[in-house]
Amino acid sequence: MIPTLLAQGEGEWLQGEGPESDVVMSTRIRLARNVQGYRFSTRIEIGESQELLGFLREKILSLPDRNFLWADLRDLGPIERQILVERHLISREHAAGDGPRGVAVEPGEKLGIMVLEEDHLRLQVLISGLDVEKAWREMSALSSGLAERIPFAWDERFGFLTACPTNVGTGLRVSAMLHLPGLVISRQIEKANQTAQKIHMAVRGLYGEGSRPASDLFQISNQVTLGRTEADLCAEFQEVVEKIVAWERETRNQLLAERRTELEDQASRSLGILERARTMTSEEALQHLSRLRLGIHLGLVENLSLAKLNRIFLWVQPGHIQKEAGKALDPQERDILRAEKLRELMP
Amino acid sequence: MIPTLLAQGEGEWLQGEGPESDVVMSTRIRLARNVQGYRFSTRIEIGESQELLGFLREKILSLPDRNFLWADLRDLGPIERQILVERHLISREHAAGDGPRGVAVEPGEKLGIMVLEEDHLRLQVLISGLDVEKAWREMSALSSGLAERIPFAWDERFGFLTACPTNVGTGLRVSAMLHLPGLVISRQIEKANQTAQKIHMAVRGLYGEGSRPASDLFQISNQVTLGRTEADLCAEFQEVVEKIVAWERETRNQLLAERRTELEDQASRSLGILERARTMTSEEALQHLSRLRLGIHLGLVENLSLAKLNRIFLWVQPGHIQKEAGKALDPQERDILRAEKLRELMP
Repeated sequence: MIPTLLAQGEGEWLQGEGPESDVVMSTRIRLARNVQGYRFSTRIEIGESQELLGFLREKILSLPDRNFLWADLRDLGPIERQILVERHLISREHAAGDGPRGVAVEPGEKLGIMVLEEDHLRLQVLISGLDVEKAWREMSALSSGLAERIPFAWDERFGFLTACPTNVGTGLRVSAMLHLPGLVISRQIEKANQTAQKIHMAVRGLYGEGSRPASDLFQISNQVTLGRTEADLCAEFQEVVEKIVAWERETRNQLLAERRTELEDQASRSLGILERARTMTSEEALQHLSRLRLGIHLGLVENLSLAKLNRIFLWVQPGHIQKEAGKALDPQERDILRAEKLRELMP
Repeated sequence: MIPTLLAQGEGEWLQGEGPESDVVMSTRIRLARNVQGYRFSTRIEIGESQELLGFLREKILSLPDRNFLWADLRDLGPIERQILVERHLISREHAAGDGPRGVAVEPGEKLGIMVLEEDHLRLQVLISGLDVEKAWREMSALSSGLAERIPFAWDERFGFLTACPTNVGTGLRVSAMLHLPGLVISRQIEKANQTAQKIHMAVRGLYGEGSRPASDLFQISNQVTLGRTEADLCAEFQEVVEKIVAWERETRNQLLAERRTELEDQASRSLGILERARTMTSEEALQHLSRLRLGIHLGLVENLSLAKLNRIFLWVQPGHIQKEAGKALDPQERDILRAEKLRELMP
C-alpha cells in the first residue's frame, strides 16, 4: 500500500485552477480531532498508541464512498517522509516522529489524514485556488463520516478537545498559500503582514527563511478557533484573503504599467536560466519559478502553463529530487540533478 | 564611396582562425609614417592639411594591386565614426577629431590606413589568431608600395620620424588581442601584467574599465620602437605572446579538471541569458560572450562557432546597435535593441 500512496504524485491542488488562482495557489482546511477514552498523542504510551493506530486505520479505510490509501510512517525512510512533507500531506513534526503514526490520503490528494500527530486525527482538505466554502463542504462531509464511526472527545463548554489549547473549540484552521511577488517587489509585504496580524491572521513565508522567501509564497491562516462557528471563521477568512488578492493584483498592474520591460526581462531571464543551468539550489529555482509565475499572470511569458509550473515547484524540492535519483544525495549532487530535471521539464 | 566602406561589416580577423586562436583573437601591426616637407598633424594648418589629405588619398587609391575604399571623416556622423572604432579601423582620437582626416580600408578589413591622425599615416594590418610574421609580411608589402610613391620623413640617426618620440625609429607597434579568462578566474592576470611590463610590453583591458574588463579581453603591445630591427621586434613579440598563450592554456586545463561543473554551468547560463534577456548592457553582454568563448574552447558549449561569437562581440557594441536601428538611441533603448539582436543571433 505504501508504494501506491507514494506513487500518487501530483495533487489536484497543483492544477492552478479555482477562483483567484493568479494569487492563491491553494486553500487548506484542517480539523483537529481526538478519540474519547485515549490519552492525547503527546502523553500516550506505546501499547495504547499501537492499538489506537490500528483502530483508526480500520475506521478510515472502511469509510463508505472513500478510497483512502494508507501508510504507516515507521515503514517509510527519510526520503519518502520528506516527499510527503513536500506534497503538504504530512507536517515536518509528523515526519520527524518515531512512535506509531500513520497517514491516509485519497487519490488526487484533496483529502488527507494524519494519524497520531499532535492530535489523534488531523483531517485536511487541500484544493486549488481560493474557495473556503467548497473546502469546508468537503471537510464537513469527511468529518461527519468519521464522527459516525469514531467517538470524538468533545466538551459542552469547550467544544472539541485538542492536545494544545490553541486548537480547542472548532479545532479548525483555515489557511491559504498566496503568491505575493507584487507586494514583495513594491516593499509592501511587511505592511500586509502587520495588517493580517491585527485581525488575528498569521502570515509566514513558505519554503525559505527570512522576510522574503525566494519563492514569494506566503501562508496565511486564522489564529482563533474558539467561540465562533466554523461557518463564521471560514467566511471571515475568505473575505480577508480576497482583500489581499485585490491588493496584490492592483500592485501587479501598477508594476506592469511602470516597469514592464524590467518584469519581462526578469521572467525571460529566469526562463533562460532554468532551461540552461547545470547546477542549481532549490532556493534559486524557487526564485526563478516565482518570477515566471508572475510573468505568466501578467501575460509576459508564453508557452508555459500554471499547472506545469506548479508541478515544477514540487519537483525541484530535495525529497522529490532524491526520489527521482532513487537514493540519498548530498546537496551538490542534488543541485546537479535538479538542474537536469529542470532542463527536462522546461518548455 | 562612404557607404561602401561602412557596408563592409565583418573583418577577416573575426573568423576565429589562425594559430593559437583559442587564446589570441587577433594580431595587429601598425606603422607610423609622415611625409617629408609637411608639418606633423599636431602642428599642421588647415590649408596644408587639406592639401596633404588630397595628396595621400590619391596615392592610396592608386596603389597597384590594391583596392582601398576611402572615407573622409568629416563626411561621417558620430554613429558611423563609432562603428569604425568598434571595428578597430580607426582610433577613438581619430574619430573625435574635426580637422581634415581620412580612413582607407581594403575589403576584408585586413589592411587599413588612418590619414592625418597623430601621424600623417598610420598603416594597419589586422589578422585573425597569432601570426606576427605573416602580419609583418603584409605590412612590409603595404609600406614598400607606399614608400615608392610618397617621400617618408626619415633621419639617418633616428630612422622614421614621428609626431611623438615614443614611436620614432621603426614606427612599429605590434599588438595582439588576448582572451584570458583562465588567468582572470585564477587571479593570475595581475602577475601576467607585471611580467609583461618588465620586458617592456604593455597589457591593458579592452572594452571596459578596471582591472577586470567584462570581456576578459586584453591587448598586449610592444613599447620599444627604437634601436631594434622590425624583424627582431616581431620575433620577440611572438615569443612573449606564445608564453602567455601556454600559461593561459595550462590554467584553463587546470580549471577544467577542478571546476568543470562550475564552468559548464556558467557558460550554459550565459547562453540561456543571451537567448532570453529583454534588455542588456554591452558590459553584461561581453561578460556572457566571454564565458561562452571559454566554454567553446573547453568543449563545454556546442552548436556555436567561434566566428559567430566574434561577430556577436562586434554587433553588441553601441555603434553597431545604433547603425542597426538607423538612428541615435539612448542607453535604455540600446539595451533593449541589443537584447533583441542577441535573441536573433544566438543559436
